[in-house]
Amino acid sequence: MGNFKGHALPGSFFCFMSLWWSTKFTLKYACKKYKRTCYLGSKALFHRIEILEGIIIIGMALIGMAGEQFIPGGPYLTLYDYKGDHWNQLLGWHHCTMYFFFGLSGVANVLCHIYHSLPVSLTKLAMSNAFFVEAFIFYNHTHGRDMLDIYVHQLLVLVITGTGLIALIDFMKSNIILMLLYSSLVWLQGTWFWQIGFVLYPLNGGPAWEAMDHDNIMFLTICFCWHYAISLIIMGLNYALVTWLVKSKLKRFCSSEIGLLKNAEREQESEEEM
Amino acid sequence: MGNFKGHALPGSFFCFMSLWWSTKFTLKYACKKYKRTCYLGSKALFHRIEILEGIIIIGMALIGMAGEQFIPGGPYLTLYDYKGDHWNQLLGWHHCTMYFFFGLSGVANVLCHIYHSLPVSLTKLAMSNAFFVEAFIFYNHTHGRDMLDIYVHQLLVLVITGTGLIALIDFMKSNIILMLLYSSLVWLQGTWFWQIGFVLYPLNGGPAWEAMDHDNIMFLTICFCWHYAISLIIMGLNYALVTWLVKSKLKRFCSSEIGLLKNAEREQESEEEM
Amino acid sequence: MGNFKGHALPGSFFCFMSLWWSTKFTLKYACKKYKRTCYLGSKALFHRIEILEGIIIIGMALIGMAGEQFIPGGPYLTLYDYKGDHWNQLLGWHHCTMYFFFGLSGVANVLCHIYHSLPVSLTKLAMSNAFFVEAFIFYNHTHGRDMLDIYVHQLLVLVITGTGLIALIDFMKSNIILMLLYSSLVWLQGTWFWQIGFVLYPLNGGPAWEAMDHDNIMFLTICFCWHYAISLIIMGLNYALVTWLVKSKLKRFCSSEIGLLKNAEREQESEEEM
Amino acid sequence: MGNFKGHALPGSFFCFMSLWWSTKFTLKYACKKYKRTCYLGSKALFHRIEILEGIIIIGMALIGMAGEQFIPGGPYLTLYDYKGDHWNQLLGWHHCTMYFFFGLSGVANVLCHIYHSLPVSLTKLAMSNAFFVEAFIFYNHTHGRDMLDIYVHQLLVLVITGTGLIALIDFMKSNIILMLLYSSLVWLQGTWFWQIGFVLYPLNGGPAWEAMDHDNIMFLTICFCWHYAISLIIMGLNYALVTWLVKSKLKRFCSSEIGLLKNAEREQESEEEM
Repeated sequence: MGNFKGHALPGSFFCFMSLWWSTKFTLKYACKKYKRTCYLGSKALFHRIEILEGIIIIGMALIGMAGEQFIPGGPYLTLYDYKGDHWNQLLGWHHCTMYFFFGLSGVANVLCHIYHSLPVSLTKLAMSNAFFVEAFIFYNHTHGRDMLDIYVHQLLVLVITGTGLIALIDFMKSNIILMLLYSSLVWLQGTWFWQIGFVLYPLNGGPAWEAMDHDNIMFLTICFCWHYAISLIIMGLNYALVTWLVKSKLKRFCSSEIGLLKNAEREQESEEEM
Repeated sequence: MGNFKGHALPGSFFCFMSLWWSTKFTLKYACKKYKRTCYLGSKALFHRIEILEGIIIIGMALIGMAGEQFIPGGPYLTLYDYKGDHWNQLLGWHHCTMYFFFGLSGVANVLCHIYHSLPVSLTKLAMSNAFFVEAFIFYNHTHGRDMLDIYVHQLLVLVITGTGLIALIDFMKSNIILMLLYSSLVWLQGTWFWQIGFVLYPLNGGPAWEAMDHDNIMFLTICFCWHYAISLIIMGLNYALVTWLVKSKLKRFCSSEIGLLKNAEREQESEEEM
Repeated sequence: MGNFKGHALPGSFFCFMSLWWSTKFTLKYACKKYKRTCYLGSKALFHRIEILEGIIIIGMALIGMAGEQFIPGGPYLTLYDYKGDHWNQLLGWHHCTMYFFFGLSGVANVLCHIYHSLPVSLTKLAMSNAFFVEAFIFYNHTHGRDMLDIYVHQLLVLVITGTGLIALIDFMKSNIILMLLYSSLVWLQGTWFWQIGFVLYPLNGGPAWEAMDHDNIMFLTICFCWHYAISLIIMGLNYALVTWLVKSKLKRFCSSEIGLLKNAEREQESEEEM
Repeated sequence: MGNFKGHALPGSFFCFMSLWWSTKFTLKYACKKYKRTCYLGSKALFHRIEILEGIIIIGMALIGMAGEQFIPGGPYLTLYDYKGDHWNQLLGWHHCTMYFFFGLSGVANVLCHIYHSLPVSLTKLAMSNAFFVEAFIFYNHTHGRDMLDIYVHQLLVLVITGTGLIALIDFMKSNIILMLLYSSLVWLQGTWFWQIGFVLYPLNGGPAWEAMDHDNIMFLTICFCWHYAISLIIMGLNYALVTWLVKSKLKRFCSSEIGLLKNAEREQESEEEM
């Protein structure tokens, strides 16, 4: 969807997922650190949450794919235009394929937490995989376009590749800081989608930014860094908020439930450590 | 072999190996997880299977090398044409060299499982090595060809490099998911060989695809992703099938044999852990 | 600040930090190795030192940012020149952004050693992060400049990327040698900033070096290596000096204090191991 | 030294070191595996051997540096030609710098095994470092030369970078197979230096190979792979020979000495494990 909405939609999806992930990772870490084994931090709940997360990701992917195919003027599932003898709207199909791999990672998420015969690390690798495929597609997405257009998409490829790499490193050596960095890169990707929308399809209906001006490139370079700085600060504030909540507020709420949950959890824990 | 068959042959080899590897890795993982120490999952059998696998790889490499050299119009082991004063069919020699390194990794496979003084991790590194050499050769394989031709081979280099890297990561930190990803990339390589055949040497005898059309490039980008998606789904189905077999069907078959195998296995296990 | 002073200031900052880091890392290592648990090597002191280090980094970053903005002819916090309808001194803003991320890593340093709910590894990743952002900015810093100018900045990008990578590796597997290598690369970055100043803005007021002379490039290649060799030798001498001090001179000084510190340290140690 | 001898000298150095390293690594591994704690595999001897190895590397580096400076027509330690107002033979200085870093790694080798306050892993990182510097220098070594000349040096950069990376991986996770791969890449580098000599400065005094012929590039691609295959086979034969010697021949020789060495070794071992 080569318009503002087509960039705002995935941007919002990624920002939403980023906030959710940073909350989830911090919650898990804080609960473990302060030994709050209340219902909110229990494994039984997390299992259900992971399944829900998978379903939400699948939903987002389906919305994205449907949006790409069935917007007015979209390809409507036609890949080849036999009348005109040319491929039919390949950019839309590119976006569809990208959404499809995120959907696949959502499916992996759901399956992993339903069937215990699947290794849990699959979810991380599936996500990393989806990001690498996205980076590959965006890298081959801008043949023959203008310098500015190419540059903003290159920055997108940079942040997506970084996200995939961090997911891969985290797959090998799990760490709360890496997970938060991962979340912040996803947030950066989300806001950068919005920025691309503003640059290429200004909301006031005016023309796109001057595509051949070196100064625009130079500005977008630091603009990208500022987006990143903001994403780091938001992740930090979210971390502080969640940790403070777990540390101080949940004390009263949790203590009474420990007894009830202990048995159910122990069973699951022994399964998870495998 | 610059024709359809020359790409279909290695494509079939890689698809076959991919299916076999994903079956083997899943079988090993499932047998370990469900503690099925029957003959099918025993180390004695796996040793013999690994040796057989090595011999099959060597056989495939020999068939490939012979095919490259002795097809009608092939180089027939002549490297330099002294009459014409030029190198003789270097592309055929490129393919030969590629096959040779796979043969070498097959030899490593056989030796590793015959002589216990060789470390077992050699097999993984030898395979990773063969893929890196293949990527190097294909990277230097398309000097002065058309854009489309270069692009489809670049995608091949991409997937081969990825395979080599995953084999290297797996060498450092073994993991069932990495092994399955590795198998799926090998499958992708196999089907992509077929795709290259269809693109450059269409079966109906028509001309190759238009080499300078940007839309063809854009289509092959997503086509590559779809091949990958299919390979992931096939690996997933294979994993589900094998796990289901091990979990439910082998129960009856295995229980009686455990007693006989226990002693033989224990000895080997202690050797392996070294 | 496109002049000699603008390169000498960050150069001095990095050289200073490099010397301090190599001293700190060696001190920690030597104290651990020779089991000198005197006040100088105690964890209580190191906590305070780390907080001080963070404050100094924040101070440096603020000085740098203020210098970039408020030097005569600087941007004075104006990003867009609405009269001339163009961006206002983006190079200065580039430098500002770079300093900002180092300031952010200083903040992470301070927070980590005040609040124990933050993981200690955050400081390393924040530093690695600051270097990667710096590398990204310098990579996009030289659009349309001369060959020599681009080359000296490319070398800077090389050493900065290397520093970030080593910080990342060290984050995954801590090691004294990696830390010293990291310090030496920071020193190299510092002296290379000075070298860039000498090359592009000679002190005697003469013109910059001939920008299109291949021999200048060739010389700067080895010059870079010599800077590196010197940095390695300085790190080595510093290591020898600190180790010798800890080994021989501190014996007398430390023995009396061990009793007093033991209790305070034990508490902290148990917290750190988490 | 832009002639045949200038490439044969480092080529011989690298081949010699490669053979020695593969022998050393295999010897260490086999002695450990077959628990041959005779004098040949003892740590006391290995310490002395490592020091000797360091001295030999320093010697080679000094020979190389002297050769570069004081051959007839060499720079004779003059960096800048003030008469002609140009840099004096920078290619010779490039080679000198390269040798200097190998000398530095030799110094690290010697110091590490004399002073126990130095971590042993320093030797590996110093070697990795020397290779990375060499790769950097060769990468910036061929400005404005012919295609063939650039290509053969690019292949050199490829193998050197690979060697550096493997030394870095081995630094993080030591493994006999990685060490042998490392040795084989060093051997490949050595023989490739010889190949470059044959290509650019043919021994029969004839002209260099045609620099603009694509077929020469294509041939050198597979030629490089064949060098690599030979290096792998040589390493394999060497491994087999050394393992066979340790396994069968040293039995008689070693048994009598074990008693004498036990005490001396135990002390050292406890120091090493630190």
